[in-house]
Amino acid sequence: MKSLSVLASLSLLALTFPFAIASDPSQLQDFCVGVNTPADGVYVNGKYCKDPSLATADDFFFTGLNETQDTDNELGSFVTFASADNVPGLNTLGISFARADFAVNGLIPAHFHPRSSEILGVSQGTLLVGFVTSDKRLFTKTINVGDVFVFPQGQVHLAANVGKVPAVAFAALNSQNPGTTYISETVFGSNPPINPDVLAKAFRLDVTAIMDLQAKFDDSSNIKTY
Amino acid sequence: MKSLSVLASLSLLALTFPFAIASDPSQLQDFCVGVNTPADGVYVNGKYCKDPSLATADDFFFTGLNETQDTDNELGSFVTFASADNVPGLNTLGISFARADFAVNGLIPAHFHPRSSEILGVSQGTLLVGFVTSDKRLFTKTINVGDVFVFPQGQVHLAANVGKVPAVAFAALNSQNPGTTYISETVFGSNPPINPDVLAKAFRLDVTAIMDLQAKFDDSSNIKTY
Amino acid sequence: MKSLSVLASLSLLALTFPFAIASDPSQLQDFCVGVNTPADGVYVNGKYCKDPSLATADDFFFTGLNETQDTDNELGSFVTFASADNVPGLNTLGISFARADFAVNGLIPAHFHPRSSEILGVSQGTLLVGFVTSDKRLFTKTINVGDVFVFPQGQVHLAANVGKVPAVAFAALNSQNPGTTYISETVFGSNPPINPDVLAKAFRLDVTAIMDLQAKFDDSSNIKTY
Amino acid sequence: MKSLSVLASLSLLALTFPFAIASDPSQLQDFCVGVNTPADGVYVNGKYCKDPSLATADDFFFTGLNETQDTDNELGSFVTFASADNVPGLNTLGISFARADFAVNGLIPAHFHPRSSEILGVSQGTLLVGFVTSDKRLFTKTINVGDVFVFPQGQVHLAANVGKVPAVAFAALNSQNPGTTYISETVFGSNPPINPDVLAKAFRLDVTAIMDLQAKFDDSSNIKTY
Amino acid sequence: MKSLSVLASLSLLALTFPFAIASDPSQLQDFCVGVNTPADGVYVNGKYCKDPSLATADDFFFTGLNETQDTDNELGSFVTFASADNVPGLNTLGISFARADFAVNGLIPAHFHPRSSEILGVSQGTLLVGFVTSDKRLFTKTINVGDVFVFPQGQVHLAANVGKVPAVAFAALNSQNPGTTYISETVFGSNPPINPDVLAKAFRLDVTAIMDLQAKFDDSSNIKTY
Amino acid sequence: MKSLSVLASLSLLALTFPFAIASDPSQLQDFCVGVNTPADGVYVNGKYCKDPSLATADDFFFTGLNETQDTDNELGSFVTFASADNVPGLNTLGISFARADFAVNGLIPAHFHPRSSEILGVSQGTLLVGFVTSDKRLFTKTINVGDVFVFPQGQVHLAANVGKVPAVAFAALNSQNPGTTYISETVFGSNPPINPDVLAKAFRLDVTAIMDLQAKFDDSSNIKTY
Repeated sequence: MKSLSVLASLSLLALTFPFAIASDPSQLQDFCVGVNTPADGVYVNGKYCKDPSLATADDFFFTGLNETQDTDNELGSFVTFASADNVPGLNTLGISFARADFAVNGLIPAHFHPRSSEILGVSQGTLLVGFVTSDKRLFTKTINVGDVFVFPQGQVHLAANVGKVPAVAFAALNSQNPGTTYISETVFGSNPPINPDVLAKAFRLDVTAIMDLQAKFDDSSNIKTY
Repeated sequence: MKSLSVLASLSLLALTFPFAIASDPSQLQDFCVGVNTPADGVYVNGKYCKDPSLATADDFFFTGLNETQDTDNELGSFVTFASADNVPGLNTLGISFARADFAVNGLIPAHFHPRSSEILGVSQGTLLVGFVTSDKRLFTKTINVGDVFVFPQGQVHLAANVGKVPAVAFAALNSQNPGTTYISETVFGSNPPINPDVLAKAFRLDVTAIMDLQAKFDDSSNIKTY
Repeated sequence: MKSLSVLASLSLLALTFPFAIASDPSQLQDFCVGVNTPADGVYVNGKYCKDPSLATADDFFFTGLNETQDTDNELGSFVTFASADNVPGLNTLGISFARADFAVNGLIPAHFHPRSSEILGVSQGTLLVGFVTSDKRLFTKTINVGDVFVFPQGQVHLAANVGKVPAVAFAALNSQNPGTTYISETVFGSNPPINPDVLAKAFRLDVTAIMDLQAKFDDSSNIKTY
Repeated sequence: MKSLSVLASLSLLALTFPFAIASDPSQLQDFCVGVNTPADGVYVNGKYCKDPSLATADDFFFTGLNETQDTDNELGSFVTFASADNVPGLNTLGISFARADFAVNGLIPAHFHPRSSEILGVSQGTLLVGFVTSDKRLFTKTINVGDVFVFPQGQVHLAANVGKVPAVAFAALNSQNPGTTYISETVFGSNPPINPDVLAKAFRLDVTAIMDLQAKFDDSSNIKTY
Repeated sequence: MKSLSVLASLSLLALTFPFAIASDPSQLQDFCVGVNTPADGVYVNGKYCKDPSLATADDFFFTGLNETQDTDNELGSFVTFASADNVPGLNTLGISFARADFAVNGLIPAHFHPRSSEILGVSQGTLLVGFVTSDKRLFTKTINVGDVFVFPQGQVHLAANVGKVPAVAFAALNSQNPGTTYISETVFGSNPPINPDVLAKAFRLDVTAIMDLQAKFDDSSNIKTY
Repeated sequence: MKSLSVLASLSLLALTFPFAIASDPSQLQDFCVGVNTPADGVYVNGKYCKDPSLATADDFFFTGLNETQDTDNELGSFVTFASADNVPGLNTLGISFARADFAVNGLIPAHFHPRSSEILGVSQGTLLVGFVTSDKRLFTKTINVGDVFVFPQGQVHLAANVGKVPAVAFAALNSQNPGTTYISETVFGSNPPINPDVLAKAFRLDVTAIMDLQAKFDDSSNIKTY
């Protein structure tokens, strides 16, 4: 069987990791430090800007990416994300940055970023990474400390710790707010849930199996998405 | 249980449909009718242009969108897509168009378009449509003849025929080549397949169940993607 | 004479139809449902966004495109347009959609869209469509049910019902607000009117003829533009 | 009558001038000096680039904008245009520049640029300039030496010499190839011509009048467009 | 010595001039006349828009570019800049315009525009212009009345009056707010100043020389930047 | 004196580091792996694409970012850059990545990126970083392991090792080819050199001092730029 033979030869198949980046609108000024002050519930695409004369160096600063995060959760992974949400100076700049911690056997499952490509680099451990194109080709590789791998915008990708120690990766994404859509969470854990009959047909499972899956993912609302 | 109770009240939950559109690079000339002549295997982002003096009205023309398509396949659906691939005049214009046929109970399963938003309109029958945002909210609606529904760029969406007759929909997408990533095909039917251990963890299934799914989707290479 | 001989051989010359689409700025978030609440007369490029947590499926919905519209007006046509103005979920997505009704001999006269290309499809009847490039070449074709035709961004185009029954067309445009500039209305019906001496020279007519035209188009303010 | 009373008070109504600019794709390198070497009739959107190591200062240079041009033609105007076509260094930069000469009573008739906005400045004489928005409002002004006026992208605009001496203007446009569509030339002088029946209806003239116009514009193929 | 021998052969080496332009976000409407009314210190990328129904022709107008400016300052130059800041109609249009006056021996020193390319044209006198690419090649030329020269986006450029009379130049830039960073002012005159030790190493000067430079540029806060 | 008093209180003033990112044109396909095969000296903006069917995972891969680089040069720093030039899969994706090594007292001097913003993170040691806006405000901070700092597109920035051990930083930039313009190298080390008289005036130094500087930077052609 095809999937098994490939599995055999790739005993630890490559999984891709998190992020990627697209083309945000250009700046119209040196910077636009974001603020969170929608007047009467009225927002803009992105964020309003702080008075430029009040901007400080701290608006362009983020700390703590050296800290090992707790990965004691079902997936054995944790993502710390520096985007326009917590680094206001990133507003309008079209870029963001992240750290990912993986427990042994930890996983960042299949997902994609609607608004960005991504470059992932390993700073500790060994990861299997990969992405699947829209014509279903899997590009995959095992990467180690000092290696980087690229995930084109909007392609489904994942990353798994296939080493014997915890792993750490860093990622750059070319949007101030790339968005992250986890495949299994989105399909089985949406609120409200998708009609199980429809999912059964799409996933070639019976309705009971789908409903079991939906029940499992019903508790997933506290999974950190970024 | 939350997913089940919502299921009960929405006995036929809405599913979204196919396409969506992003922001292709702008034109630098009136048109650039695409050609398929990569010199020695060298391509460009998009397509090379035909000599403008040789362009004809037929380069901007496509026919047959009125024809009912055969939906006698596992999903009970068929998509006819007019993009820069078969309408060369669409090259550089940032738009494409499609027709979708649905058998009774037919389905276009969960998917997304990496490079476009989409507007879907119903010309026959009744569809349940919906999309799931990156924070897992499902926006869903049952739509009938003359209704349209919008799927933002990169959001997972689907559409199911919930009426008693075959359905037909039309869709507009804002890219000359939106790309279409079907979730289940991509995850379980990639070539080569993704490591089943990794998928088992992501989908909260055992490895045997994943391998069964991969075997089912191994035959899916002739599903029409667009 | 050239124009007459071409006229003879093309007794019903093709006219193009309405819309076309360009490259709107990209999204910075999953969606930005538009609102109409300029604070103290202050607007933004496009629209402010609704609080995302208050968005509903109806923000992405439009109905009535199946309804035959009254074409009992001077041009014998009517356009129904679904853009960010009446489908708030289209805000920031860079796409819009329209339906055009044509009486027998009905016409959508020469016009262009400053901000989009367009794909037009026929769902009933027969249209002559065409566009003129900036070097004055006319690309034209008679199209029937199931045919589509493409109008590149900013090119002057038009569409005329040349069949024996009313016609209906659908169009997709790649801007949330493509704009529509009707040539004759703009030139002869502006408010205030353009100096007739200047128009006389441009159109190689005498001033009296121009003033007659301006008088005719002075009543055109209630022509629906979209 | 409205158009006449406005005419009376504005005995020589302002007409707008030539150019405007949009958003070309961004550069991916310091420059891409354009070349004209399509291999076997295969072009790209814009132009191929010269080997960067062979670029010289002359690729970024244009001369002669100080020279008065011959305006002894039907419109009494002449436009000299510096774009990526004759200044190869402008390729990929998204900007172009022009000089316009006006005889006494000379005119640059109603036109628009599909791909750019425009800033027009007067260096000699007096011009009436204006543009018409897509909702048919005319913004118009008489401008003199040292004045500039702005024409937003895709808006119909024109300029007329209303002074007693020849006039000269300079214009900047934000596309390397803005395109220029002259309204009357496009509508009445296309090749092949548009069906006169259709134009008659659009312009509220009889078919004979339209055919007379088309005959007049049939000789216009040597009008300089830019 | 290389720099001297080139200097000898180019007795007055060409210097580049001021501006250049990039790719601002596209318009979503015919125009968005800018206003200066941040509500409670909250701004947007670019500017808020005036109520379109209140826009007038004067919003698209600027005057005085024919006036000779006082160049009695240390550099012997003065720049008058028409951007979205003082021509509100330029907001969202992606273009701006400037006039530069040069005394005999006057100079617009090395600088760049973060957000635009530039076309510079001479209307009086003789300028040495040039730009340096990111691989340090200098493209330079002496230009006279009627000549134009192009500076690609973000490249360092300058212009010097090398003629015997005052010079005047005009420049077009493809951003509504190109930004201008003068090299020497930025490096030696920032507020607060950059650490002299660091500058000493970068400029291969001793710390005392750097501190002397910083003292000279400390008085430069009233240099006009545009 | 202002610059000295600030100097005193900030004995080792913060300097910014390398990169920043802009808005490259969007993808028109899943990926376009770059190739280096200009036919007869003809290039495109960016790169031609490899036949997509021949792409492999190695096209998206780069290795060696964990390796300490030799910083035994005049500046005491070395930059390793992963862009579309050496990671062909980055072509069209609008993102790149770098590692910077700093000796004790090592420096990456004042520079900017014409086509990108940048996020810089420290993985070893202590850096003083900062950027200067176009109105000459310095935003500066001392950052340590786990800290990141943001440099907006086109702003002059720098970074200096102010700790007692070698430092290492990582940077993400939102262009496939951001370009890097080092201020002192560009101004004093261009080929051919800029006229010393002009630089003397701009830098408020005498001509002899400028010529000394040019002589020093004449040997700098083998400085690694990225």
